[in-house]
Amino acid sequence: MSNVKAGADMDPEEFRRHGYAVIDRIAEYLREPERWPVLPAIEPGAFSRQVPGSAPVQGESMEQVLADFDRLVMPNTTHWNHPGFMAYFATSSTAPGILAETLAAGLNVNAMLWRTGPAATELEEVTLVWLRDLMGLPAEFDGTINDTASSSTLYALAAAREMYPELRVREEGLGRDGTPRMRVYCSADAHSSVDKAVITLGMGMSGIRHIPTDEAHAMDASALAIAIAEDRASGWLPIAVVATVGTTSTTAIDPVPAIADICEREKLWLHVDASYGGTAALVPEMQWILAGCERAQSLVVNPHKWLFVPIDCSVLYTRRPDVLRRAFSLVPEYLTTTDPSDVRNLMDYGVSLGRRFRSLKLWFVMRYFGADGLRQRLRQHMDLARSFAGWVSADAAWEVVAAVTFSVVVFRYRPAGVDSEEELERLNAQILQAINASGEVFLSHTKVNGRYCLRLAVGNIRTELDHVERAWQLARKAAQYVAADAGER
Amino acid sequence: MSNVKAGADMDPEEFRRHGYAVIDRIAEYLREPERWPVLPAIEPGAFSRQVPGSAPVQGESMEQVLADFDRLVMPNTTHWNHPGFMAYFATSSTAPGILAETLAAGLNVNAMLWRTGPAATELEEVTLVWLRDLMGLPAEFDGTINDTASSSTLYALAAAREMYPELRVREEGLGRDGTPRMRVYCSADAHSSVDKAVITLGMGMSGIRHIPTDEAHAMDASALAIAIAEDRASGWLPIAVVATVGTTSTTAIDPVPAIADICEREKLWLHVDASYGGTAALVPEMQWILAGCERAQSLVVNPHKWLFVPIDCSVLYTRRPDVLRRAFSLVPEYLTTTDPSDVRNLMDYGVSLGRRFRSLKLWFVMRYFGADGLRQRLRQHMDLARSFAGWVSADAAWEVVAAVTFSVVVFRYRPAGVDSEEELERLNAQILQAINASGEVFLSHTKVNGRYCLRLAVGNIRTELDHVERAWQLARKAAQYVAADAGER
Repeated sequence: MSNVKAGADMDPEEFRRHGYAVIDRIAEYLREPERWPVLPAIEPGAFSRQVPGSAPVQGESMEQVLADFDRLVMPNTTHWNHPGFMAYFATSSTAPGILAETLAAGLNVNAMLWRTGPAATELEEVTLVWLRDLMGLPAEFDGTINDTASSSTLYALAAAREMYPELRVREEGLGRDGTPRMRVYCSADAHSSVDKAVITLGMGMSGIRHIPTDEAHAMDASALAIAIAEDRASGWLPIAVVATVGTTSTTAIDPVPAIADICEREKLWLHVDASYGGTAALVPEMQWILAGCERAQSLVVNPHKWLFVPIDCSVLYTRRPDVLRRAFSLVPEYLTTTDPSDVRNLMDYGVSLGRRFRSLKLWFVMRYFGADGLRQRLRQHMDLARSFAGWVSADAAWEVVAAVTFSVVVFRYRPAGVDSEEELERLNAQILQAINASGEVFLSHTKVNGRYCLRLAVGNIRTELDHVERAWQLARKAAQYVAADAGER
Repeated sequence: MSNVKAGADMDPEEFRRHGYAVIDRIAEYLREPERWPVLPAIEPGAFSRQVPGSAPVQGESMEQVLADFDRLVMPNTTHWNHPGFMAYFATSSTAPGILAETLAAGLNVNAMLWRTGPAATELEEVTLVWLRDLMGLPAEFDGTINDTASSSTLYALAAAREMYPELRVREEGLGRDGTPRMRVYCSADAHSSVDKAVITLGMGMSGIRHIPTDEAHAMDASALAIAIAEDRASGWLPIAVVATVGTTSTTAIDPVPAIADICEREKLWLHVDASYGGTAALVPEMQWILAGCERAQSLVVNPHKWLFVPIDCSVLYTRRPDVLRRAFSLVPEYLTTTDPSDVRNLMDYGVSLGRRFRSLKLWFVMRYFGADGLRQRLRQHMDLARSFAGWVSADAAWEVVAAVTFSVVVFRYRPAGVDSEEELERLNAQILQAINASGEVFLSHTKVNGRYCLRLAVGNIRTELDHVERAWQLARKAAQYVAADAGER
């Protein structure tokens, strides 16, 4: 049955019927999140080939569209909500978050200005105060929600650039003769989004200097101090340091207090990338991970990573919202309002003018679980990671490669008698492939000081002990297989 | 009733129950979208004051959370889905789009890599081919979905910067002595996001030159040619021109064919901002608006503006995806895959690493309405705007200030005997305030050559003739009131 009046939206009763059907699908999906393989067995292009090459001229029935969703999307998507998803940083969409996203789509608020979304604008402020206080961050930190940590870090570094009004970066740009070139510092293990931000901002890859890490994969603060001194001596203008609390590769924590000392002495903007690790600070016994962060100019933390909020929801906190605003505020006549001048207009704090009502899902999730519920689940995830690391350590043919501080285990197969890194990489890559081909578990990899390692990241709210056990079983089984295979050759 | 197992997600049956309740709310909302005033009567801070200052320690029941949504959010939000919303560019979330967003939240796919979201990645390609073909854009145009046009334009201009590999912008940045400073051109009426992009990219406000417009508010192409020649003579490096098809203020169309001639001759990147106007090209008799755009290097169009897709969904088309990729691709070890090297990984085409499954709502909307349904509604919106403009023109005390090409009318009250621009601004601002205080209609304003004007933007799928008629009634009533008031003083 097609829509009766062409170009009119669906009748509300029909919407209700299809809405229930969609909710039923999600309820079944959440009841049985392991029904589909976590990684689909699909070749590139196989999905596209099943879809018509052009849009339909006449509208189709919603039944048909939903049937195609079931037939084409469900078997061909990677299931981030599968409890065996332990690759990258595992994330979850939880029921309260899904309900909030549904309501947000229903309202379709664009909170670019306070007046175009008063509740959305103020709820963003309220929920970010809640989160800030739970993380133990100082009251001077003022937050805004962005899509991803990549955007948040870009905005933070754009603000850092504005700390030198005499250079007139906003007015004149970076390209004038005689002005010093700016440089940003982060560890060799910082996320690639820092590099991307520096490139985007026009400072180029040479505008970033990667500081070596110590044996714990944390930034070497004394090397940072030396690098800054060297750069000043050769005419660079150091502007910012990005410290990471929970690096992507090994979840290492940079020595933020020592870095903050340097930043204060050198008058540099300190931005902390706690996009994954930050939410662990909700757990009182983990608040030490943010030591020194209270001295940062900005900090990014992603509730869509390890706080059970559906993607996308990245929070940028800063004690200098005035500078962030200076970097980005531009108000053309058609966006001026008669609202009080101290009203917060979210469009002033980043590149994107349009702003979805993202605070709603953060509000729903924090209220439904409560601080204690969130803490309990975070603790459980860290317990699971420690258990897994224990099994790995207890097996002589395997090793844990980095300290387990959060919920990620970096490990590898290292059987007696195999010392060639090349051979170890080949074996571990084969093991990874075998694990992922199971459809039960999805892990990813990294390299630590050149050594190829597997990464098991607990973060999905549905991941329980049996999933982590199964990952270990699969890993050992795969190792036996590849070792036998290697022996035969 | 609180959740039984602290930290566990909601039971699927409970999710189903609350999910139905959420769907019911949206069904009722869509049935009676005028139940709430389009603009809430709320003072800044009034929402925040009704919400606790800290997160709950114990989880709360979903009933309580939804009750607070009803009590606090609904009366305090601006209702973008109200058919009287005719401010800025009016948008809509339609039933198929809402269903798709719900499913996307349920799956929580992050399509940063093909392998982390094969269906999402390929559906993005498929739906953008559909849209491209409906708009009559050339087959060389390759699309990706971003959050907003601000991001899309930022990415396009970052790509433009990469057209000069000898300047090594990605490697060395813009700050080296002796390298020419880059400049971007757009009309004086281009969107502020162009300025914001240029500032963000490190070129500064002086890195953008605003070209005067002609009497139709379109860029003066000969002035562009002269500006480029002047700038080259004084050592600037012109890199890109942003032409607009449907400016924000008056929906003017820059002379893209003439601008394309200049860009080809001068070897500049031509980016077209068709974020609002572009979708009108779905209507065959409107395809002329994109004349010359087939020669552009990139073009942005927002299905979340005037194609009934919930926010956020902005499409960046480019014939040079290789250059866009060169500007942004950075693949750290932990994101490398064994997938074929020609697989598209969406993270390579912009700042954001994380990518929501945004193509799903575009697919649902295009299929449910069909090309003809979409065309019918776009035509109706343009008809409504022309009707409104007709009424304004027929009234001697009012004037239409800019040509009505799409679905926006720029107009003002200009009674006989009042010639002072200051007085006209005061009168029209009062009229605007009175209209918006009605709660029935929400209009915005702009300035055209210094003249303060009202803007009526049809774009909401539920806007019908009676809403536009009501806007006109309210405007005339308000004019009588403010005129009488002015007479009394």
